[in-house]
Amino acid sequence: MKPSIPKGTRDFGPVEMARRNFIFRTIEDIFRLHGFLQIETPAMETLETLMGKYGEEGDRLIFRILNSGDFKSGINPVDWANGSAMQISNQICEKALRYDLTVPFARYVVMNAGDIVFPFKRYQLQPVWRADRPQKGRYREFYQCDADIVGSNALLNEAELMQLIDEIFSRLQLKVITKLNNRKILTGIAAFVGRMDMLTDITTAIDKLEKAGFENVKAELMEKGLKPEEFGKLEPFFHLGGTNTYKLESLKNILSASEIGLKGIDEMETLLKYVNTLQLRFPVEVDFTLARGLNYYTGTIIEVKSAETAIGSICGGGRYDDLTGIFGMKNLSGVGISFGADRIYDVMLQLERFPASVLRSTEVLVVNFGGDEEMAAIIIANKLRNAAIAAELYPGVEKLKKQFAYADAKKIKWVVVAGADEIATKKVTVKNMETGQQETISEDALIQYIQS
Amino acid sequence: MKPSIPKGTRDFGPVEMARRNFIFRTIEDIFRLHGFLQIETPAMETLETLMGKYGEEGDRLIFRILNSGDFKSGINPVDWANGSAMQISNQICEKALRYDLTVPFARYVVMNAGDIVFPFKRYQLQPVWRADRPQKGRYREFYQCDADIVGSNALLNEAELMQLIDEIFSRLQLKVITKLNNRKILTGIAAFVGRMDMLTDITTAIDKLEKAGFENVKAELMEKGLKPEEFGKLEPFFHLGGTNTYKLESLKNILSASEIGLKGIDEMETLLKYVNTLQLRFPVEVDFTLARGLNYYTGTIIEVKSAETAIGSICGGGRYDDLTGIFGMKNLSGVGISFGADRIYDVMLQLERFPASVLRSTEVLVVNFGGDEEMAAIIIANKLRNAAIAAELYPGVEKLKKQFAYADAKKIKWVVVAGADEIATKKVTVKNMETGQQETISEDALIQYIQS
Repeated sequence: MKPSIPKGTRDFGPVEMARRNFIFRTIEDIFRLHGFLQIETPAMETLETLMGKYGEEGDRLIFRILNSGDFKSGINPVDWANGSAMQISNQICEKALRYDLTVPFARYVVMNAGDIVFPFKRYQLQPVWRADRPQKGRYREFYQCDADIVGSNALLNEAELMQLIDEIFSRLQLKVITKLNNRKILTGIAAFVGRMDMLTDITTAIDKLEKAGFENVKAELMEKGLKPEEFGKLEPFFHLGGTNTYKLESLKNILSASEIGLKGIDEMETLLKYVNTLQLRFPVEVDFTLARGLNYYTGTIIEVKSAETAIGSICGGGRYDDLTGIFGMKNLSGVGISFGADRIYDVMLQLERFPASVLRSTEVLVVNFGGDEEMAAIIIANKLRNAAIAAELYPGVEKLKKQFAYADAKKIKWVVVAGADEIATKKVTVKNMETGQQETISEDALIQYIQS
Repeated sequence: MKPSIPKGTRDFGPVEMARRNFIFRTIEDIFRLHGFLQIETPAMETLETLMGKYGEEGDRLIFRILNSGDFKSGINPVDWANGSAMQISNQICEKALRYDLTVPFARYVVMNAGDIVFPFKRYQLQPVWRADRPQKGRYREFYQCDADIVGSNALLNEAELMQLIDEIFSRLQLKVITKLNNRKILTGIAAFVGRMDMLTDITTAIDKLEKAGFENVKAELMEKGLKPEEFGKLEPFFHLGGTNTYKLESLKNILSASEIGLKGIDEMETLLKYVNTLQLRFPVEVDFTLARGLNYYTGTIIEVKSAETAIGSICGGGRYDDLTGIFGMKNLSGVGISFGADRIYDVMLQLERFPASVLRSTEVLVVNFGGDEEMAAIIIANKLRNAAIAAELYPGVEKLKKQFAYADAKKIKWVVVAGADEIATKKVTVKNMETGQQETISEDALIQYIQS
């Protein structure tokens, strides 16, 4: 039997893990520096918790877990014959794999509201599973890194998320551009066009502007029933240029009759004032065509793109006024962002931004000659580790060539040789595998030699 | 709808996560210090990879994932009526959740043998899932922390695992006792008794000695067909006392005719010689009744117990000579240990060994007065974070009492107040929430004040 793994899933070997950990630890460090607290939820949720939260398509993409034991009981052959796949699956599966981190978080907040200190700043780094068709850059198991603040309406929280973005990508040495919009502005635009009934169609279409192009977006909207004169009112929003201030001023004039539109503009202005105080490193651009996840967000919408590659969004988020409403807890506003670890990994690999030090694990290999020398070598390796230097004694007695090849393959910088002669004189020979230089020094001086 | 989570699963809130991370980071730090490299495998494996690896009981406890799409096709109502739950589940599920980390690791080694540097020292910290009946201390989702060395027969590797145990529990401030046995000795004992056919029965029974007591073990063995004179030959092994050396010498005399038994004793003596050189902190005790996972291990068997509580095994492992044989790759010997994170958590909580610092997250809360003061406060919080001090500005404008209660609930040590008066004179008031003391200092001196 030749083993394999399910399609759309991946093994992560030591090199990938070292790189992935570098990304995760960087993100986590910044989350913590800002006082976000970590939670973890189970991989499995009840099917009831997940169903109906991600639209019809989402329901189909949820991985269901077969009930253990006698899952067949209660379904007779006639039921089996007549039931749809969806109906039967709901009868034989009570549990399913987490599809994102947001719904489990909402469920967690509702179940633990009594113990939570609000405003609750939480982060969560866990895998999610989707039965999507696997393709380049899209997997059936992938990690999400989410930070959310719930229980506060303050736009200061949006500003803090902007700061997380700025600090994280700066530490990762990636140049990014952050785009901002506000759902209320999108609503104002739909009202201005006179087609509030087409709010979803309009925003979905203009969200595609960059990818699909002007003509295709126009055709799509016409087909969906937007009249030419209505499209004429919408078109100017596509072309609003200039500085953020100029764009907002222009919009204020156009949407002067829309209360909700003006509210959105006001929120965006407040947020930009914070952003200005924060003196972020990377540019923030107001973009009225940004609409990601419209049905979900109720205020600010954030999207981050790499400024150096064509890879699309690498981070995004926004404000949702009713996260926990689906579980019966009303009026809890939240705002959150999600970092796309896999996309960030791809960008960093493409731009070669992983520090070389990421791949170094063991610092010192002590050669193993067996016998009494082995006992002396055990003690040398031990002393190094007691000084917090990652050290290995070669695990077995093999030819020197093989032991050096091991050091080479593991990118170990130093090889320490302590043969009978060296042990007798309390010396060791240290070889720097990067330069090829070697030196015989007193054993007592070894730790300092490696550290300096 | 009142949300819930599947039975046997758990949410981990900020306090549990902080404690769990302390355990995981401690274990990982020591693994890395010894040159172990991390890998991760997918939560889902093909059903084929997992089935038949954990015995019949194990097969039943594997969580299966329903095929997505039209899983019903190919099973007509007659098949459904006639098939057993196991048969049908194998037809409608191609994938299943990982049951342990060892089988996925073996699968990984076989699939990636060409890229792996052998001897391969790998570690893996991931959850596993079992459809066991949930009970106190037993969950359907739990973490395993495994370290293995494959591709080397050297007993030095066993010694390194003993060292990991010693260093990890020492850092966790837990006193432990490590018990050692060797599968070859167990085989030698069965041969001495003259019932090699009952090797599994004998070892399974004596493994229960501590829990079930002498009389029950005797009754079980008699019932399974051990004759009284045979039990008479077995009994002395239960009572072998004295030092490790004395026990081994006694055994050497009794098993003098068993080649495999003597091989086991020789291995144990070599291992103890290494252990002696390592000068471990915690005691190591030879115990010929230790038999965990017999069918799996082929040499050394290791078990670690807390020396301060009645909670049983908190870590265990051993050598297996044919880990990858199940996937067609022969002659790859390995040795590994697994740390039981949940049990370790319970012991530490019971003995109150978590350092208080584990629960501290944010170090400084800056009070939010809104308006211009808020902008000044943003800058203060920023400066603190730039000095690597975890700091939050209260996320919203609320009464002082509420803001201080937030600091209290989050166990934040310092609260910084910068009102209009303070800002005008470039000062801040700092309150130590632990002592209640407060002081007004120059804003420039804040970082140093907090750090010292």
